[in-house]
Amino acid sequence: MALKRVLIVGAGLIGGSMGLALSRRMPHLEVDAVEQNAVYREQAGRLGAFARVWHALESAPSDYDLAVLAVPVDAAVQMLPRVRGKATRVMDVCSVKRPIVQAMDRVLTGSRGVPSHPMAGKAQAGPLAAEESLFEKRPWLFLETHRPPEEVLHLVERVGARTVWVPDAEAHDRRMAEVSHGIHLASQCAILAAESAPDALAEMAGPAFWDVTRLASSPSEFWIQTLAANRDHVISWLRRFEAAAQAFRATLEREDEAELNMLLDEARRRRKRAEAARNTE
Amino acid sequence: MALKRVLIVGAGLIGGSMGLALSRRMPHLEVDAVEQNAVYREQAGRLGAFARVWHALESAPSDYDLAVLAVPVDAAVQMLPRVRGKATRVMDVCSVKRPIVQAMDRVLTGSRGVPSHPMAGKAQAGPLAAEESLFEKRPWLFLETHRPPEEVLHLVERVGARTVWVPDAEAHDRRMAEVSHGIHLASQCAILAAESAPDALAEMAGPAFWDVTRLASSPSEFWIQTLAANRDHVISWLRRFEAAAQAFRATLEREDEAELNMLLDEARRRRKRAEAARNTE
Repeated sequence: MALKRVLIVGAGLIGGSMGLALSRRMPHLEVDAVEQNAVYREQAGRLGAFARVWHALESAPSDYDLAVLAVPVDAAVQMLPRVRGKATRVMDVCSVKRPIVQAMDRVLTGSRGVPSHPMAGKAQAGPLAAEESLFEKRPWLFLETHRPPEEVLHLVERVGARTVWVPDAEAHDRRMAEVSHGIHLASQCAILAAESAPDALAEMAGPAFWDVTRLASSPSEFWIQTLAANRDHVISWLRRFEAAAQAFRATLEREDEAELNMLLDEARRRRKRAEAARNTE
Repeated sequence: MALKRVLIVGAGLIGGSMGLALSRRMPHLEVDAVEQNAVYREQAGRLGAFARVWHALESAPSDYDLAVLAVPVDAAVQMLPRVRGKATRVMDVCSVKRPIVQAMDRVLTGSRGVPSHPMAGKAQAGPLAAEESLFEKRPWLFLETHRPPEEVLHLVERVGARTVWVPDAEAHDRRMAEVSHGIHLASQCAILAAESAPDALAEMAGPAFWDVTRLASSPSEFWIQTLAANRDHVISWLRRFEAAAQAFRATLEREDEAELNMLLDEARRRRKRAEAARNTE
């Protein structure tokens, strides 16, 4: 059954970009939004993406085919019981899946809940940063445990994203710790390990330093919430990360060049295999 | 006293690039090289940079004004007693300073030894990769404990590098652990911490993952020697790196968002300060 009416809850970067992409590429669709922040609401209204922008979920009607929770994961979990009366299906776009999947399984019956995760973003936030092409060629992750109906897959295809299947919420969150959440902490640890003043580092730093520490300049708020939401997997990742650093240290302390060589080779082998998989996409 | 005759020991990427830059930009200078590897020697001979390319140090005459050791740090330390008879001054260009400074202080009298470190390089090795402009705008590090004579500073200026002063070999090696040697290990640890198959990572990875793990694909030989040569500082750096990871893990285990926020803020503050220092150069 084709979607006719969509409600985007949260008209920030992701919600605003979805509004732009859907309204321009699926013009038969009626797309509304809910935005509680007055400044964002006014900006979202001027995007030309939404038929109506409600100031609160309670004001919106209850006959949407799909509601999209485009808010941080804590807010998404909190809003779920109030969103379920507004739409036939509820999709989220959060970067951590276990909390929202647990809430969906509890609050929504049958296949009404559609957990998903578009791997798209940019440094700026808010509706003014929204772009119709934000999802173009980017992976949009779905869980094999919660396969969405055809009309949702069609919608994702129309905004230009690539559908990628992940076994379940656990696998999703573990891999996110590996490709994103842990990686951000690695970048932060790399700059926290320096004793020298940042000015002295800058004087001698080359591309290696600037690339690896780049993520340390990310804003904290998003990361505090994301790391907390994916706490268990990030903790496990950090243990393995610490073990890798200890293994390198042990080879240097023992002057064991053969073992050092094995560690360097193993890291290179993994990186090369990831590169090869990336290139065949 | 102006330099007239220079001997470059090792005509690889760095030695070959110095030969090109010196012969083209200081045409009054006579530049010779020593290269033991037959293939490299033949390639170096065709660069048009060197008046003569000797196959062994022993064959070269003993009246050079400056010999430049452009070989790995272990080889530089080993060759020093044999090079000292060939030139008035001996400069090295190794990326770790303590072993070579200790050897220079032991083997060379007065200010004959000039430890230095041009921060330039590229992925390819050998004379065929040499470029006249390799040192253009790149830092060329000298130690305040071993200030080179004017004519050496002039030479570095003519090849296009920026002279940067570091207090001593200890400070140099500690900072190199912080901006390069440790950073490479951080990149390797970030990919070794993943349990998922590299293909699964590639499917979900964004720029954060690719940037931070990029250095894991570096060839091992150079790193084994460099890490061994800067062992003490890399070990200390790894201890602080492990402590930073443990601190992040502890805040997540205790669900201490205030402390997590402090760590993220401290990392961001350092990175921003380094960026500001970089931009004012």
